[in-house]
Amino acid sequence: MKIDGSKMRGKRNIIILKFGGTSVGDADRIKKVADKIISASLEANRVVAVVSAMGDTTDKLVDLAGEVSSGPSRREMDMLLSTGERVSGALLAMAIQEKGYDCISLTGGQAGIVTDEGYSNAKILYIKTDRILKELKKGRIVIIAGFQGINLRGDITTLGRGGSDTTAVAIASALNAKYCEIYTDVEGVYSTDPNVVCGAVKLDAISYDEMLELASCGAKVLHLRAVEFAKKHNVVLHIRSSFNDIEGTWVMDNYKKDNRMERPVITGVTYDVGEVKVSIFGLEDKPGIAADLFGRLAKENINVDLIVQNVSEKNFAVISFTVRNENVPLAEKVLSKIENVRVEIDSDIAKVSIIGAGMQTHPGVAAKMFKILAEKEINIEMISTSPIRISCVIKRGEIKEAVKTLHSGFGLSR
Amino acid sequence: MKIDGSKMRGKRNIIILKFGGTSVGDADRIKKVADKIISASLEANRVVAVVSAMGDTTDKLVDLAGEVSSGPSRREMDMLLSTGERVSGALLAMAIQEKGYDCISLTGGQAGIVTDEGYSNAKILYIKTDRILKELKKGRIVIIAGFQGINLRGDITTLGRGGSDTTAVAIASALNAKYCEIYTDVEGVYSTDPNVVCGAVKLDAISYDEMLELASCGAKVLHLRAVEFAKKHNVVLHIRSSFNDIEGTWVMDNYKKDNRMERPVITGVTYDVGEVKVSIFGLEDKPGIAADLFGRLAKENINVDLIVQNVSEKNFAVISFTVRNENVPLAEKVLSKIENVRVEIDSDIAKVSIIGAGMQTHPGVAAKMFKILAEKEINIEMISTSPIRISCVIKRGEIKEAVKTLHSGFGLSR
Repeated sequence: MKIDGSKMRGKRNIIILKFGGTSVGDADRIKKVADKIISASLEANRVVAVVSAMGDTTDKLVDLAGEVSSGPSRREMDMLLSTGERVSGALLAMAIQEKGYDCISLTGGQAGIVTDEGYSNAKILYIKTDRILKELKKGRIVIIAGFQGINLRGDITTLGRGGSDTTAVAIASALNAKYCEIYTDVEGVYSTDPNVVCGAVKLDAISYDEMLELASCGAKVLHLRAVEFAKKHNVVLHIRSSFNDIEGTWVMDNYKKDNRMERPVITGVTYDVGEVKVSIFGLEDKPGIAADLFGRLAKENINVDLIVQNVSEKNFAVISFTVRNENVPLAEKVLSKIENVRVEIDSDIAKVSIIGAGMQTHPGVAAKMFKILAEKEINIEMISTSPIRISCVIKRGEIKEAVKTLHSGFGLSR
Repeated sequence: MKIDGSKMRGKRNIIILKFGGTSVGDADRIKKVADKIISASLEANRVVAVVSAMGDTTDKLVDLAGEVSSGPSRREMDMLLSTGERVSGALLAMAIQEKGYDCISLTGGQAGIVTDEGYSNAKILYIKTDRILKELKKGRIVIIAGFQGINLRGDITTLGRGGSDTTAVAIASALNAKYCEIYTDVEGVYSTDPNVVCGAVKLDAISYDEMLELASCGAKVLHLRAVEFAKKHNVVLHIRSSFNDIEGTWVMDNYKKDNRMERPVITGVTYDVGEVKVSIFGLEDKPGIAADLFGRLAKENINVDLIVQNVSEKNFAVISFTVRNENVPLAEKVLSKIENVRVEIDSDIAKVSIIGAGMQTHPGVAAKMFKILAEKEINIEMISTSPIRISCVIKRGEIKEAVKTLHSGFGLSR
């Protein structure tokens, strides 16, 4: 696919490449990544690569911490975990130098990534790009240890789950880079899970909002936070495989201005089997009752996804909502403190979603979805919508059939 | 042993503890080290601990570097290797916190250790102690990642072999600490190798000069550079086992002022089987010939130990010297460029040394040594002396007997 040149206007001739832990899992893979970076540097003017820790390094370090402490302090955890990316960064720099190219690896702190104090889940405050730019000007390839920064005290912080993606996108934004390539173990973003639907197709391009909905609906290609950052700062992303040279999926806004006619209404079908439905019977139907209920859950950091409220007989309300599997015990504990109600947990559910920026201008998409499911006699238990997504909660056993039939019903199959 | 209180006068109530890689080899050992540090903090006012990387971490990282590069750059090597001490430092801090004590781990850079630019073998320029003192004032135990510093560019450097010892001694000096304890896998410094002589005794105390001679004669307890640093800055050392609570060996000057009568003439007997004798025949016996020869060797960084020069017949000189085993191929290459000489390599040699500050005021020690060896019909091939050491090169096969007979002959055996 040819990406729209106007998207790149006003950008610096720098590209950012990000490699995940699998891509740098051992010495041989590091050498292959070195080749990819060198190729990119021969094509583009300047290259900055962001790396994750090798393979399961981070898990091993977490295990070690667990052996010496039942609840390690987050500051020391960050000191510990940040070493993984430094190791892969230094090794990658050596591999590139070995092939005769000038290269330097930098820690998050050396790369000027300044964060708040929030150890283990720090937010980037700003990036001082002086050092990176100085090294690039010397003609060097710059490798940056992902997932980490430094706070104003000079202490090492980490950026939480998916942190290396965030590092890459933030560096791309700070450097005003042409685009940011995320190398991963899949070839791009698919219209649905290829393991479920054999007709799943790789998407050439999607918008940030579509990517956000995909990420939050269980497509694990890219971390939500990195996509949000990319959207906010207008960073063009390219998600591709680190094991071949095939073009992947571009993430940017208005990606098909020139051939709008072809734009599909629906981009993808996703599913999620990691949620459980909680229903509460016998709540008094009066103002403030929902606020109280969800306030209690929020206070315990329990994220609630879909919510449905109905009035049953005698002015008592029934409220149903979904929470992540792992939050069920905590949710039950919170709810047990509410008097005179009955709580039911249904774990035999799954969520199927259709996503597409096109549905904003195409009425009738929801009706079509419900009809497709009805034709297969799949019962819908809950419904939730966003401007570019419609989600239905159904029985868990029917989820694969639902994904397949929606994928073909909306004309996505190959 | 009660150490002379006057040595501690004017010092701060801070002690430094240093733990090597074996002492922090796994989670269980780290927990034991945590206990030791906590005990010390309950006895002394303030405690700073310096740690090496866990077990064979550094070797594994060196191997990884070897897999991606045939000659990795020293800057990237330092970036890579410095992570090992950060991991053990963070884990140790967690283990101490777990037991309910306030603790923080610092990298070399965070601890204010500023070095020159010399990657892989950096020299400490100065230590900015603000951060350490600030943390100590908060009542915290401070853990410092050994072996590393930061240069004026903000890049990570390492201090070379035995670097963590150097870190500990330098920190002790900068903080004006009471003393610096080096925890290791032996119980202290012995009068000779306990594996060779079963009557070897642990020394209560020795001087810096004796320790330096011991270190340079093959006793691997403590790195030469750290001892030199301790001597120069008058840092009292205590070398002891990390596996028990037995008092080890104190290293300081004038350690037995109060009971001088007991001071032994000879402190220890050491040996070294890692050297080879090189003899050069047919050199013209004229001024400048030795300077030329050893200049050539020095240019290739070949360290020469003992040197003996004799004049043979017809004004031709014979020069013999010893070099480390591993330097033989390079030495042969250098010497092959000198015309009209014959080079002989004899690897069937070993060096036995007696060490003792007492020999400076006791004449006849050398004569006694030669007599003891002669009685066992051990032939001496080369002799070298320093103010507190006499070394003899003998046949390799006779080294164990030489060590035993000298150890008992000088009254060192238990």
